[in-house]
Amino acid sequence: MPIRLGELAERFGCELNGDPDVLIENVAALANAGPESLTFLSGSSFKKQLSSTKAAAVVLRADDVGDCPTASLVSDNPYASYAKMAAVIHPAPVFEPGIHPSAVISPAASVSASANVAANAVIEDDVIVGENAVIGAGSFVGPGCRLGNDCRLHANVTLVRAVVTGDRCIFHSGSVIGSDGFGNAMTPEGWIRIPQVGGVIIGNDVEIGASTTVDCGAIDNTIIGDGVRLDNQIQIGHNVHIGEHTAMASGCAIAGSAVIGKRCMFAGMSGVAGHIEICDDVVVSGKAMVSKSITQPGVYAGMFPAETVSSWNRRVASFRRLGKLLDRVSRLEKKDT
Amino acid sequence: MPIRLGELAERFGCELNGDPDVLIENVAALANAGPESLTFLSGSSFKKQLSSTKAAAVVLRADDVGDCPTASLVSDNPYASYAKMAAVIHPAPVFEPGIHPSAVISPAASVSASANVAANAVIEDDVIVGENAVIGAGSFVGPGCRLGNDCRLHANVTLVRAVVTGDRCIFHSGSVIGSDGFGNAMTPEGWIRIPQVGGVIIGNDVEIGASTTVDCGAIDNTIIGDGVRLDNQIQIGHNVHIGEHTAMASGCAIAGSAVIGKRCMFAGMSGVAGHIEICDDVVVSGKAMVSKSITQPGVYAGMFPAETVSSWNRRVASFRRLGKLLDRVSRLEKKDT
Amino acid sequence: MPIRLGELAERFGCELNGDPDVLIENVAALANAGPESLTFLSGSSFKKQLSSTKAAAVVLRADDVGDCPTASLVSDNPYASYAKMAAVIHPAPVFEPGIHPSAVISPAASVSASANVAANAVIEDDVIVGENAVIGAGSFVGPGCRLGNDCRLHANVTLVRAVVTGDRCIFHSGSVIGSDGFGNAMTPEGWIRIPQVGGVIIGNDVEIGASTTVDCGAIDNTIIGDGVRLDNQIQIGHNVHIGEHTAMASGCAIAGSAVIGKRCMFAGMSGVAGHIEICDDVVVSGKAMVSKSITQPGVYAGMFPAETVSSWNRRVASFRRLGKLLDRVSRLEKKDT
Repeated sequence: MPIRLGELAERFGCELNGDPDVLIENVAALANAGPESLTFLSGSSFKKQLSSTKAAAVVLRADDVGDCPTASLVSDNPYASYAKMAAVIHPAPVFEPGIHPSAVISPAASVSASANVAANAVIEDDVIVGENAVIGAGSFVGPGCRLGNDCRLHANVTLVRAVVTGDRCIFHSGSVIGSDGFGNAMTPEGWIRIPQVGGVIIGNDVEIGASTTVDCGAIDNTIIGDGVRLDNQIQIGHNVHIGEHTAMASGCAIAGSAVIGKRCMFAGMSGVAGHIEICDDVVVSGKAMVSKSITQPGVYAGMFPAETVSSWNRRVASFRRLGKLLDRVSRLEKKDT
Repeated sequence: MPIRLGELAERFGCELNGDPDVLIENVAALANAGPESLTFLSGSSFKKQLSSTKAAAVVLRADDVGDCPTASLVSDNPYASYAKMAAVIHPAPVFEPGIHPSAVISPAASVSASANVAANAVIEDDVIVGENAVIGAGSFVGPGCRLGNDCRLHANVTLVRAVVTGDRCIFHSGSVIGSDGFGNAMTPEGWIRIPQVGGVIIGNDVEIGASTTVDCGAIDNTIIGDGVRLDNQIQIGHNVHIGEHTAMASGCAIAGSAVIGKRCMFAGMSGVAGHIEICDDVVVSGKAMVSKSITQPGVYAGMFPAETVSSWNRRVASFRRLGKLLDRVSRLEKKDT
Repeated sequence: MPIRLGELAERFGCELNGDPDVLIENVAALANAGPESLTFLSGSSFKKQLSSTKAAAVVLRADDVGDCPTASLVSDNPYASYAKMAAVIHPAPVFEPGIHPSAVISPAASVSASANVAANAVIEDDVIVGENAVIGAGSFVGPGCRLGNDCRLHANVTLVRAVVTGDRCIFHSGSVIGSDGFGNAMTPEGWIRIPQVGGVIIGNDVEIGASTTVDCGAIDNTIIGDGVRLDNQIQIGHNVHIGEHTAMASGCAIAGSAVIGKRCMFAGMSGVAGHIEICDDVVVSGKAMVSKSITQPGVYAGMFPAETVSSWNRRVASFRRLGKLLDRVSRLEKKDT
């Protein structure tokens, strides 16, 4: 949706350096932007691309205005301002209210008249779907689910049962929410399964990535706080609590009953052991495994970066001699005294 | 389903301390249980919650009876006894026999009259679906599959082709069984794919988690033994054999042709290299990577737990000086002699 | 499809030692092959099985002919020759052109008359499906997608939107392509999402595994080159570029904006940090994490193999004493001089 630069500046409270009547038609990366595009400069790593940008306008910090060869929109948080503007320039698709004739909806479900239910979606008994909700093609909303207003399930999402959400949640394709937790008791005859009778409670403004799985609680509920962001291919075990505005990148796995604080950030492929607690404002680096509770905010890590295999193999060999090395040094010290 | 305490005691062979006529209506966690709830005490970590529980009754070991402020059911394996009782109190949903009109079933498939096939499920040629099987909404059962009795596919499960199961297997949403293995031969023109013509043979009482994938065999079959438990987001490569009653937590990946013994346990995010063998009764810790065959039962590990990034970075720096340190100590020893 | 040995030899340019009129009916592993089976010997690890094989014929290197107790087909690359022959003996299923009546296809989509669209598939506006394409049951092809000729989507695949492919691509069940990337900007009110407006461009002859996810670009496109092979459960972040003929085994995760060269190979569970570059012909070992750009071809590693937990725990304890050990050795050296 084309929009005037002046209108962007006004709507999002940015100082404009440049012609307010320039029309913005799309967003683009700093290096590829053309004269109809809005772009942004956030960190310092792209700063060198600024001087040669062909964008119509750049959202940037006040410090960078002098180096900008085109119009600029000044913001203390250029990335966030860009996000808001981009949402206006490229608005989310609008879905007309209605239920596709191929969708299968239980008579015991209550679907808002303003909702859109796409082809081949299935909605089971005792479901409530809120206003303006969008249920994507092939998605399944199982018994006892309650979806707030303005939620969107992309195609082929599965809410197994007893998933209760706030408003404005987004579920990406392939995600599975409310599947049984992994509860098994060993007996002489083998494993017997523990019935998983809890649900999943999801706050407002939560986004859950493609092929991410969130198990229902074993007895109580699994809880995902307001504003949580889960990327793709993440596993959240039963009874986990995730605090508000915590974000996890792809491939993380959180074992059952872990309690995670607010505003935490987990880089990709990191993991958390079961039954531990992580306080607010913890950052976990890529591939790190948190195996004990964390009580202090801060950054935690535990990964060796890859290097050439010959170098790495030497290090592993050295590492295996470390126990003996400690003894050898102790011996030297003893002699030395 | 409400049930008398006395009936639970009798049916599951537990000594009852308390009024047999108390009605149990649900299960609950020790700390949250109310006067209509059954709960349990298994390990020692929740022991401190016992004295203040408000549950109707607690399943516990004989040693803990004295500390229990309410009725108790005594068991040598409280968790397993609780599991069996919970399955009575919260029985699995019952599905009426029948085929939803929107399901698409090949005339060349044989579906038991007692099976339930839900909305938009698709069943292909040459499939046999056993008695009381439940095929969830949107699930796909591809050519040549044979499902035993009392199996359940949750919504949006995919059995690609040639998957043969025993009885009482459970497949959670998003799981994909019988997909092609990753077989490619390099040529000067690029990769060419190796046809994957084997199937997947699954025993009785197997449970496969949400978004878990099990590839078909390249030539022979991939084999999953009786009673195996796979959590969510697991990958099982082609030709893998998994022995009976082995359990894997979420995020594990088992590379092609690995052979894994019986009663093994894999913690989350652990991995197994291709073409190796792991004997019975092996436990693999979280995030560990088994790269060589294991011939002795026991616990295996290989993960550094996360710590503060400053501390971890110092360790990595020290680690990189280890090779030289070995030389320095050798020099000191030489001088010393 | 039964085929004469002589025809295989001629078609694929292999020297035949044996009776050209023997009929091959299937492929089998060296150890299990019967008198109607073709098998192959590629590496040295199966060499010991050669002398006792009961196969009709073995594809092998010239050096191994003398040890072969049955007919042989000689090739410089036995695995590749076997792959081609196996594709003739076990041809891929043929799908008749046609659209299943339960499929839902937008009038604004263009589906080739030679394509096969299976039950309950959904094809949205502004989609082009090329010749002989197969759209599996329950699959979703979202707005703006363009599929080349001879592509196959297995059952329950999701192409979210704006996915453009070359010819002969294969998408396995549960894969999700074109889902939104993980782009969020922090504000005092919490995360706000960055609209993800790019698409996914996929070359010719690409194969994408079960439950693998490929995000669309944030602004520009995510790009997967010709001949790329992605196994199951892989995550490809937004704006990633993967060069031609690169292959990744299951469980890898590539963070946003990483650029990966041609002919690279990633073993299972390895990872790549965002915004880095990896040159052509790099091999990354299992579970390794590439956190900096790689400019030299070669093999890179960073994983400690699992060992017994007692041994591993001792190593971790030693490792934690390493910083102090360095100091102790420095002290000894100082005294020594």
